[in-house]
Amino acid sequence: MQKLPVNAIYAQSGGVTSVINASACGVIETARRYSDRIGTVYAAHNGILGVLNEDLIDTQYETEATISALRQTPGGAFGSSRYVLHSQQHDPAAYTRLIDVFKAHNIGYFFYNGGNGSADTCEKIAAISHDMGYPIQAIHIPKTIDNDIIGTDCCPGFGSVAKYVATATRETGHDIASMASSSTKVFILEVMGRNAGWIAAASALAQQNQEQPPHIILFPEVAFNLEKFIASVNLVVARHGFCCVVASEGVCDENGRFLSASDSADEAGDHQLGGVGPKLAKLVIAHTGLKTHYAVADYLQRAARHMASATDVAQAYQVGVHAVEAALNGVNGAMVNIVRDSDEPYRWHCETIGLEGIATLERKLPANFISEDGMHITAEARRYLQPLIIGEDFGVYDKRGLPAYAELKGIMANKKLPIWVANK
Amino acid sequence: MQKLPVNAIYAQSGGVTSVINASACGVIETARRYSDRIGTVYAAHNGILGVLNEDLIDTQYETEATISALRQTPGGAFGSSRYVLHSQQHDPAAYTRLIDVFKAHNIGYFFYNGGNGSADTCEKIAAISHDMGYPIQAIHIPKTIDNDIIGTDCCPGFGSVAKYVATATRETGHDIASMASSSTKVFILEVMGRNAGWIAAASALAQQNQEQPPHIILFPEVAFNLEKFIASVNLVVARHGFCCVVASEGVCDENGRFLSASDSADEAGDHQLGGVGPKLAKLVIAHTGLKTHYAVADYLQRAARHMASATDVAQAYQVGVHAVEAALNGVNGAMVNIVRDSDEPYRWHCETIGLEGIATLERKLPANFISEDGMHITAEARRYLQPLIIGEDFGVYDKRGLPAYAELKGIMANKKLPIWVANK
Repeated sequence: MQKLPVNAIYAQSGGVTSVINASACGVIETARRYSDRIGTVYAAHNGILGVLNEDLIDTQYETEATISALRQTPGGAFGSSRYVLHSQQHDPAAYTRLIDVFKAHNIGYFFYNGGNGSADTCEKIAAISHDMGYPIQAIHIPKTIDNDIIGTDCCPGFGSVAKYVATATRETGHDIASMASSSTKVFILEVMGRNAGWIAAASALAQQNQEQPPHIILFPEVAFNLEKFIASVNLVVARHGFCCVVASEGVCDENGRFLSASDSADEAGDHQLGGVGPKLAKLVIAHTGLKTHYAVADYLQRAARHMASATDVAQAYQVGVHAVEAALNGVNGAMVNIVRDSDEPYRWHCETIGLEGIATLERKLPANFISEDGMHITAEARRYLQPLIIGEDFGVYDKRGLPAYAELKGIMANKKLPIWVANK
Repeated sequence: MQKLPVNAIYAQSGGVTSVINASACGVIETARRYSDRIGTVYAAHNGILGVLNEDLIDTQYETEATISALRQTPGGAFGSSRYVLHSQQHDPAAYTRLIDVFKAHNIGYFFYNGGNGSADTCEKIAAISHDMGYPIQAIHIPKTIDNDIIGTDCCPGFGSVAKYVATATRETGHDIASMASSSTKVFILEVMGRNAGWIAAASALAQQNQEQPPHIILFPEVAFNLEKFIASVNLVVARHGFCCVVASEGVCDENGRFLSASDSADEAGDHQLGGVGPKLAKLVIAHTGLKTHYAVADYLQRAARHMASATDVAQAYQVGVHAVEAALNGVNGAMVNIVRDSDEPYRWHCETIGLEGIATLERKLPANFISEDGMHITAEARRYLQPLIIGEDFGVYDKRGLPAYAELKGIMANKKLPIWVANK
């Protein structure tokens, strides 16, 4: 027997990407196609916090053009959050509250668009159906620039950062090559990647041959060895006249300590990184005396919608579409995953996979993706990475020469419940 | 009486831009159109050093397609240099050498593509004609991302960096806005600009209204005041929930000391900057406790051909064209300059202007371009800056998803002279 139309909540979680809104677009456009079965899609304002606070943006007021423009809008259009939902045992009031909100707005579907940590939240919400008797179907829509979610061939968001970093490596490589005879000899590009070196690895796609930048890649998976690093820099400079290094923010020393970590930590207890670029530049200058520059890409890479991979945008959209279709097919407690059918030509499709274990495991670079010397990638890695950056999706520019983004009305659903006070 | 065909040297100098090769393209394509009057265009390898070393790339071996592809290739395709040519009085041997090279290769035209410092070199070479009796016409083709050359409405190279920085500010602004409720509250983007705040100023073009990022801009022209800065950050965060800061690398304290300068200095005696981003981030964290991120754009901005302004590319090309035409009209010792005919619609044309004084003066942000509080730009600045970023020129991408660049054969002209040994 078919369910009566119920409403859906879509929420964004964790660090945003340049294409997370393409997933939102996929969810909302698909839900609108099934309007006989899904009523309103509410977008929670600031992730799960928006659900708890009953801050629900009613997307039915947004025009087709606005929803379509989400596809080319970076950041989290509805607000994202790093809020951690504790277990039922530790914070039962939060779960009661979630059910109150779901009931008040007749919510039957919950689409959670996030990374590993968010998969955990999604799993907890999926369990409400069984544990607490409220019929909710929770589907996780993967998203992370870090590409570290297990169970999927790749993560929407990663392909675009990969394309950005590979392009930046090619561009800056040309710049430095042209100046090295009388100026900068060593350039260090710091990229994101706390525990997994996927983003740094993607810089290697810039190469048309092994002589070209990046000459050295530093991964979180490989313990940093100062002597070996400096020796390599000297060797590369002797050979090419300059040396381009790409370093993951999460590079660690032999004792597993981040080469550069600030003292501040966020709510989830993670140390805020950033600073490996300047740190490495200092080391290079001290040990070689060579003129050295560094760039810290930080949010530039994560927000670079202008450099999106068309493949990545298509995948980000499709995981949204598939999530809605899976929900309508009765799936609960699952993540949409991308399955690779072939490398070249690149073919892929979406499926769903159970959420068990996804939140707790991080997918690091496999050993056979890292070259023997620990400072570059292998042919296997190239075969995996290459298709993810294919195709350009520049988005639309306005007459003033800047990218044009979705401008949401952001009309909130009327609140039906008392204000929520978090258990601290 | 028309000169017999003579050859030309084109050379790139100083920090490169993402569109300097578009000027090379303009020079070479135009010279080819006047093949009855200009024989071969030799491109000096590594700027003026290539002339002294007789390292001359014979561009007649490069196909039309390759020369055309220069238009979309960042960096200095023929190599640039920060080498400083001293005065005739201090280094007469260098001038004798230059004339030897000019004679050996029948050079009648010298096109020097550089910034302020390079204008000085160009002026010295132009003087050879009068002082030393060798008939050479030297034309300066302006280029600098810093937009600090006097005598021209703007500098080719700046418009594309302006577009890059404005786009990055808009993109990262969306990212941070979407996360601020539970994550980063302050974001600092460090951009180039040693003594002039043009690049930082251009970030303001990201705004559709004054509430949007960038909220605070720090210019080299305005002494940094910590108390005022921290008070502004707190005010903006209180109002918007987050604060985006764009800071010139050349921000100075009230005593004119760079807020963050490394100890290394290049051959021209300039202190290598970079580090204002991390420095400001530390200050913000120390004084507000707010979660803060920073990005250092460094060469990412200067090499970002993928984000070129179509207006800038057109100007970079046209100054090359105009230089050749001016040379054929007998001009010597001049710079090609861009004259603005109207703001909206934006209209401009090229002229030439004498080189006297251009090398010694830096064009800073005029006082009426900086807002009263010293931390933003005025409507006059917007009127000036806006047209320079109009239009997109993304370049061509290959099948692997990366920008495709000119691949030069780089065949060197046969050397006819003994090896040159610089006077040290």
